[in-house]
Amino acid sequence: MTEKVQTVCIIGTGLIGGSLALALKKSGFCRRIVGAGRTEATLKKAVELGVVDHYETDFALAVKDADIVVVAVPLSAMKNVFEQIAPALSATAVVTDAGSAKQSVISDAQVAFGKTSNRFVAGHPISGTEKSGVTAAFTELYENRKVILTPTNGTDGEAVQLVTEMWQAAGAEVETMDAEHHDMVLAGTSHLPHILAFGLVDCLNSLEDVDEIFRFAAGGFRDFTRIASSDPVMWRDICLSNREDILVMMKKYQAQLQMISSALEDSDADALVEIFSRAKKARDQFNNQ
Amino acid sequence: MTEKVQTVCIIGTGLIGGSLALALKKSGFCRRIVGAGRTEATLKKAVELGVVDHYETDFALAVKDADIVVVAVPLSAMKNVFEQIAPALSATAVVTDAGSAKQSVISDAQVAFGKTSNRFVAGHPISGTEKSGVTAAFTELYENRKVILTPTNGTDGEAVQLVTEMWQAAGAEVETMDAEHHDMVLAGTSHLPHILAFGLVDCLNSLEDVDEIFRFAAGGFRDFTRIASSDPVMWRDICLSNREDILVMMKKYQAQLQMISSALEDSDADALVEIFSRAKKARDQFNNQ
Repeated sequence: MTEKVQTVCIIGTGLIGGSLALALKKSGFCRRIVGAGRTEATLKKAVELGVVDHYETDFALAVKDADIVVVAVPLSAMKNVFEQIAPALSATAVVTDAGSAKQSVISDAQVAFGKTSNRFVAGHPISGTEKSGVTAAFTELYENRKVILTPTNGTDGEAVQLVTEMWQAAGAEVETMDAEHHDMVLAGTSHLPHILAFGLVDCLNSLEDVDEIFRFAAGGFRDFTRIASSDPVMWRDICLSNREDILVMMKKYQAQLQMISSALEDSDADALVEIFSRAKKARDQFNNQ
Repeated sequence: MTEKVQTVCIIGTGLIGGSLALALKKSGFCRRIVGAGRTEATLKKAVELGVVDHYETDFALAVKDADIVVVAVPLSAMKNVFEQIAPALSATAVVTDAGSAKQSVISDAQVAFGKTSNRFVAGHPISGTEKSGVTAAFTELYENRKVILTPTNGTDGEAVQLVTEMWQAAGAEVETMDAEHHDMVLAGTSHLPHILAFGLVDCLNSLEDVDEIFRFAAGGFRDFTRIASSDPVMWRDICLSNREDILVMMKKYQAQLQMISSALEDSDADALVEIFSRAKKARDQFNNQ
């Protein structure tokens, strides 16, 4: 394992940051992990659970000796955290994040870091569960999962390499792509499905005999709506940060539903089979990947 | 176990009929299970796998000695099967089905069975997987799952009792309700989610870089769209059989999505958190049931 990394600082020791800390500890990627966050009780818990070695509530103190800083906070908090750490970073420190939308984070980083934003590498681990918090963290969260890095033209190549090695040490497969492309792809495969699941549960919840309705729900419903148990504030942030791409996807989906609605209105059996068959074929292929 | 049941005939030995056969065999509910269907190869396979004891491709022959006939065929085939078996049923035979919509099946039964439709008990096991066919059948499918029976005012009480005992022998919890109510509840908890999942996969599948999109899909997407691997013809039938209730639910859902779209258009953070929080609360309660 690389010898160059002494200290990793993880700001935000929830499911995402905490699981990364556990995986890095296990792999021996660095000598020391410093946790930082706003809530001292959470940080104490993180030390107690062996997730981090040490904690700081002052972000500037936390990042002072860090070779890598991972900012794993809600998207709405990114800019503020970047601004707090910018003056305290060492000249060689590399900063990365774990947010679900990338263009907004890159723009926040450019404002906060200015000239040194070439050592900021935007990243997104494609994993997580509907749970949150340090107690939900586990070492294997990133094993064989994808992490997408979205460096810009100005991003330092060595910084990208270091962040890549960090995620590989945590067990992940790392790929790079444009931030614009990332945001569009994730709007379709993650952001839209979460909105649809939240929407379905809220819709059924507004019906009169809601207890009956949930009582007779089966496994399909359970799986379909699992992601509606996700953190509402985190998802508000994702929606606002990737608003335009999500709106594009929502419009496409609303048109799709209108197409199915019309087929059903017209009792158009062939149209229904055609749509369902295309979907099944695509989903079966995805399953076999 | 009751001594009154000698022979159960199961028409349609796919996932639903085949799993029932396996569970009834294991429980000793009856002496003999006759399988029937259109495709001899499937029936041979069912005998080979030990799912049924004997098979017939002629439905009238199949039901001749049956105490209970379970019709587990697609909704669009119900009426035709009912008409074929009606003249061949013994005077005491009880008929039930396993269709996902109940008003349409009751109406088919009333036409086909006429005066003897009082011994038809409409039923729906709330279970299944996205897989189909006799090779997908397994003994435990109904264990601790709900089965809803929707007898009408005219349905014979003893017939309801016998069908209840059969499903209990297969491990299920049996409840009764009005067919109208069943169809509305299932439109919301099962039929609508399936349509939404088929719709999402078809929508993403129509995008240009579809390979990329599926490649970066994570666990949430996988669970959300699992039901889009379901049988397209079966779901066409369900849509057409429960068309009106599904259309009511789709309209409600489309209004819900429009509400979320508008909140997003307006960058209305509070509205988004409110919707997502209500959904999370309802979904968490369902999880704890």
